[in-house]
Amino acid sequence: MQNKMKAYRLLDWQTKPKLVETEIPEPAGGEVLIKVAGNGLCHSDISMQQMPKEMVEQIGWKVPFTLGHEIGGWIEKLGAGVTGFKIGDPVVLVSSYFCGNCEYCLKGQTNNCENAAAGRGYGINGGLAEYVLVDKPQQIIKLDKLDPATAGPLTDAGSTSYHAVKRILPKLIPGSTAIVIGSGGLGGFAIQFIRELSPAKIIAIDTNENRLEIAKDYGAHHTLVGVNEATLGEIMDLTDGRGVEVVLDFAGFDATIETGLAAVRKSGSFGLIGAGMGTSNKPWYGSLPLDGEVFNFQGGSINDTKEVIKLAEAGLIRNEVELFSLDDVEKAYEKMEQGMLRGRAVVKP
Amino acid sequence: MQNKMKAYRLLDWQTKPKLVETEIPEPAGGEVLIKVAGNGLCHSDISMQQMPKEMVEQIGWKVPFTLGHEIGGWIEKLGAGVTGFKIGDPVVLVSSYFCGNCEYCLKGQTNNCENAAAGRGYGINGGLAEYVLVDKPQQIIKLDKLDPATAGPLTDAGSTSYHAVKRILPKLIPGSTAIVIGSGGLGGFAIQFIRELSPAKIIAIDTNENRLEIAKDYGAHHTLVGVNEATLGEIMDLTDGRGVEVVLDFAGFDATIETGLAAVRKSGSFGLIGAGMGTSNKPWYGSLPLDGEVFNFQGGSINDTKEVIKLAEAGLIRNEVELFSLDDVEKAYEKMEQGMLRGRAVVKP
Amino acid sequence: MQNKMKAYRLLDWQTKPKLVETEIPEPAGGEVLIKVAGNGLCHSDISMQQMPKEMVEQIGWKVPFTLGHEIGGWIEKLGAGVTGFKIGDPVVLVSSYFCGNCEYCLKGQTNNCENAAAGRGYGINGGLAEYVLVDKPQQIIKLDKLDPATAGPLTDAGSTSYHAVKRILPKLIPGSTAIVIGSGGLGGFAIQFIRELSPAKIIAIDTNENRLEIAKDYGAHHTLVGVNEATLGEIMDLTDGRGVEVVLDFAGFDATIETGLAAVRKSGSFGLIGAGMGTSNKPWYGSLPLDGEVFNFQGGSINDTKEVIKLAEAGLIRNEVELFSLDDVEKAYEKMEQGMLRGRAVVKP
Amino acid sequence: MQNKMKAYRLLDWQTKPKLVETEIPEPAGGEVLIKVAGNGLCHSDISMQQMPKEMVEQIGWKVPFTLGHEIGGWIEKLGAGVTGFKIGDPVVLVSSYFCGNCEYCLKGQTNNCENAAAGRGYGINGGLAEYVLVDKPQQIIKLDKLDPATAGPLTDAGSTSYHAVKRILPKLIPGSTAIVIGSGGLGGFAIQFIRELSPAKIIAIDTNENRLEIAKDYGAHHTLVGVNEATLGEIMDLTDGRGVEVVLDFAGFDATIETGLAAVRKSGSFGLIGAGMGTSNKPWYGSLPLDGEVFNFQGGSINDTKEVIKLAEAGLIRNEVELFSLDDVEKAYEKMEQGMLRGRAVVKP
Repeated sequence: MQNKMKAYRLLDWQTKPKLVETEIPEPAGGEVLIKVAGNGLCHSDISMQQMPKEMVEQIGWKVPFTLGHEIGGWIEKLGAGVTGFKIGDPVVLVSSYFCGNCEYCLKGQTNNCENAAAGRGYGINGGLAEYVLVDKPQQIIKLDKLDPATAGPLTDAGSTSYHAVKRILPKLIPGSTAIVIGSGGLGGFAIQFIRELSPAKIIAIDTNENRLEIAKDYGAHHTLVGVNEATLGEIMDLTDGRGVEVVLDFAGFDATIETGLAAVRKSGSFGLIGAGMGTSNKPWYGSLPLDGEVFNFQGGSINDTKEVIKLAEAGLIRNEVELFSLDDVEKAYEKMEQGMLRGRAVVKP
Repeated sequence: MQNKMKAYRLLDWQTKPKLVETEIPEPAGGEVLIKVAGNGLCHSDISMQQMPKEMVEQIGWKVPFTLGHEIGGWIEKLGAGVTGFKIGDPVVLVSSYFCGNCEYCLKGQTNNCENAAAGRGYGINGGLAEYVLVDKPQQIIKLDKLDPATAGPLTDAGSTSYHAVKRILPKLIPGSTAIVIGSGGLGGFAIQFIRELSPAKIIAIDTNENRLEIAKDYGAHHTLVGVNEATLGEIMDLTDGRGVEVVLDFAGFDATIETGLAAVRKSGSFGLIGAGMGTSNKPWYGSLPLDGEVFNFQGGSINDTKEVIKLAEAGLIRNEVELFSLDDVEKAYEKMEQGMLRGRAVVKP
Repeated sequence: MQNKMKAYRLLDWQTKPKLVETEIPEPAGGEVLIKVAGNGLCHSDISMQQMPKEMVEQIGWKVPFTLGHEIGGWIEKLGAGVTGFKIGDPVVLVSSYFCGNCEYCLKGQTNNCENAAAGRGYGINGGLAEYVLVDKPQQIIKLDKLDPATAGPLTDAGSTSYHAVKRILPKLIPGSTAIVIGSGGLGGFAIQFIRELSPAKIIAIDTNENRLEIAKDYGAHHTLVGVNEATLGEIMDLTDGRGVEVVLDFAGFDATIETGLAAVRKSGSFGLIGAGMGTSNKPWYGSLPLDGEVFNFQGGSINDTKEVIKLAEAGLIRNEVELFSLDDVEKAYEKMEQGMLRGRAVVKP
Repeated sequence: MQNKMKAYRLLDWQTKPKLVETEIPEPAGGEVLIKVAGNGLCHSDISMQQMPKEMVEQIGWKVPFTLGHEIGGWIEKLGAGVTGFKIGDPVVLVSSYFCGNCEYCLKGQTNNCENAAAGRGYGINGGLAEYVLVDKPQQIIKLDKLDPATAGPLTDAGSTSYHAVKRILPKLIPGSTAIVIGSGGLGGFAIQFIRELSPAKIIAIDTNENRLEIAKDYGAHHTLVGVNEATLGEIMDLTDGRGVEVVLDFAGFDATIETGLAAVRKSGSFGLIGAGMGTSNKPWYGSLPLDGEVFNFQGGSINDTKEVIKLAEAGLIRNEVELFSLDDVEKAYEKMEQGMLRGRAVVKP
């Protein structure tokens, strides 16, 4: 093994990341080195480049670091004292970093970890490289039949979507309806999870008709193009005037929030997952789902991630990806930005 | 028994209600006549007078009707086929009317009843009269030791507040903190419920310093005067920078919503109960309690009401009221509007 | 309409029921007359004939009454004041009678009703007749596409099984395993519910290999013949030594209880549904599922029943029945007793 | 600091432990050395001495080891890399050892840890010594005002009892009743937790009338002496014939199990905590709490323990102990065995 590798790194804030040579890290006691098989690309990779230096460093991120937080690979080297793995084991890494010791981690809510402002690919070195270091082995999930080259997106796009769906599953009783707004990467997973884990009727909404075709393919019973003045009426028609038990909004604009809220029945849920930075200008009293809930969160827990991996291992969900080489990483981001991918882009070093 | 009685009735929309003579109703088969012992006054009695006729009649309310929805009394007469009661039994009536047959009622969520836009005191004849008719005997709750003359407020102010507290109780583990914004009628009950049913530290916030004294008396550990720029910092100081698990906002203005949201920890709850018609202008993504919930509702269920009555019967909560005669009903509303009551105003016919 | 009809009635305790002529009932105010389309047969029909008179009348059952508690039909006649139905509407009747007013009913736990020792077909007139009376219209569930002639078993065999499955669904996360002991009528439904509503691996156990074939057909991943000394080892082999999250025991003998308990993992559930009257002779400390639960119950709630009907309406479960005429009712019971039915026997008047 | 200390150690199975000299351990990287302030004694200390060698070593316990698993002390020395503590910090140690990485630990159910057959005081060195080593710093809980010399029993007797109470709290609504069978160490905590965290009426049952006096002092509303033929009738009298929502059985004999089960209402809970090795000989069908639950478990989780510590820090529960020197450890065990302690015995080195 050489001691240099290629890595796609953010060298300074508000600059474009670059594919450069960097050191292959060496695992210290308790650490593990992973040989990257594939790393999924995420919209947040782009937005984090553009954040002002002051804001970012305040939350504890430091440049330079390697991007990439949807990581699959193989165990390459075990630091002193690490047990439970063999060299060559195929694995994925949890995308939401966690300390394992804080109040939230000890309750299993690792996605709410108090010591995880930075994680692999956001503030510390991530997976767009030939190797990546894991300082906490409990963040490694072993694979059975899945290919580590393509499994990365399950740990972030999959896990985040699953966190939302798992929360609202008890409301998706027989006869219920769920709306998924935005049927791209995360929304596509949500449709699959709902179809697989509940008997609910699914209405997918997206501005992109190709994605609506995929939504149908994944199990959506009805599709609506975009959110406009007619949308609420269409939803009511599809539900015999009852409205829906759940809206999961993977877009998050003013229009999707307001229409979504209006569609939810008493005791229903409106989940905001999309970072569209929208709001509702109506008085909250009487416009929020009565005796229901509005919720927002970031990322899935380690348990969410493990459950998503189990679903994929059992062949119960599909994880569609388009593969790129590390040299083509910028081309991959471009295609993602243009909305031209069917699933997630995955970069193989 | 004569066949005329005094009643305080809304004779037309956007007019002032009047104390008039009206018929004593006769219970038909399955109905029950109650002799009113006392009826609590509520701010919503005032606001409903001011609603535009079109809006109100759209939801199924018809004038004239007798006001008053916090009703205690005695069984006066049983319609054919009604069992389980004796003449003279002391009782209270559920404040949130319910049908008993719809999807929500059959789940025990009677406060979400689909057939209850109108109820006693809002759209049909209520308790500000010598007698009131109950068409569904399952809405009657028998009292043991409590005085029906003063128990009425437990069914609305008490039950609504309890509904909020019961929802968030699982979050009030040892070491947690709850904020109650608005420590008047409903908020005062909330403080008592939290103190009695959880080990949480309670911070009461109110603009009225007298009410903050009462809040302390009811068990609040800390009090803050009003919500302003310093409030969030004060809350953080009182919680060692942790923030709080729960905010129950019985005011509901922009300022209370925004400060309340900012005070809630990850996985916490913000409950909006007050009809201040406020909103939050911030993007929802990232400003709602992370992995927590925002909720809003109207009124308690029959189970909530029964549980509040049990707490009061056991002497575990206080229900402070100021008594007025039916002839003084307008004086009572005035004193309520001026914020000059310690507890609820109750009118005894 | 004539005023006489045929009905299969229990004329005295510890005698064989007879097909006799009896009066067609007339619905009083608030009641509804149903024309029976089909009535499913249940093992409990047999066992109730054999109970000692003293015991049975102590729980409030009186002879004579018509048997049959899995009832589908059409609205025939509405008593005064009943709304929400049209003559000819296809319906099923809730199998577990409930009062709608007691503590349990008001929480939606109608199967735990305190005033329901007797119900249609057990203590009062049931569905093995041309007509049946319903005194509480909230016990009627309207059908959409389902045939009332065959839907009856969904209300009892289906609903009871669903009650068990719904309780343990939160434990059936991806990667989990459920065992269904006894894959006949109720167990067959359980296998379908688990397959449709969860990603769990299902192990079906039965002494009858034909029923195991049906179990596979319904979605069981593995089958085991009977419970013996090898069974626990087989279960451990099928779960990589982990054991299972849930056992639903529709048999209820000593052997099924003891093997089932031993197979459950920490925090898992053992549900006893079958009336095999077995027990476990081991000390409970350490032999019950650690930090898990053991539960037993009788019958589903109205909400359970409605959800089962929704699943069947959506084509998500199968309800296989064998049809008999009312004149052949005794032949149908014989075939049931001999274990020669694929699904439930349904008698069409 | 010398390198020898006194420790009360089990030198071989089925022998009496001895107070001997042993090495003071040195914390390796990631470990922490605790100076013991006090260690609570537990009945299980006695029973583990008596287990057959084959059985014990099968579960991974090895002699010799120091007894004692209710440990309070001060941080003495930090191994390399350990952060978050200062020398001299007062602390307690979690009694139920856990790995932090297995399926259960990652869900916060550390008491169900798959890698914790042995723990401090049971299979590895515990707290009946001047110093004790902690290999996982996440098992250390810092104290605020509590005295580490006496806080140890909160981590085991307190935490185990709390685990049971926390599980059944949702059933202890206003108007409910809980029975605590066995009001000694664990039961005494249970009475306090129920009184502090719920409005339930508490019935304490014990054969020892002194302990019943303590039970009353802790908040029990009623007490019954022992379990005999009259007990069920007395319980029914105390609950107007309703029965109780919850029984927590800290004894666990045939009689307490059978009477306890019979006292539980529909949908109630029977929790078996006491290791009396009893069972119920009745058929389970119909004798378990209908639509309720029976549960059994061992030990509390780290979250349970932290919550108990918070309750004690806030002065909401009492933790009564009798102090002994390490030289008097055998006298302390004797007094415990004779039932002559008011609270827990704590040994101060």
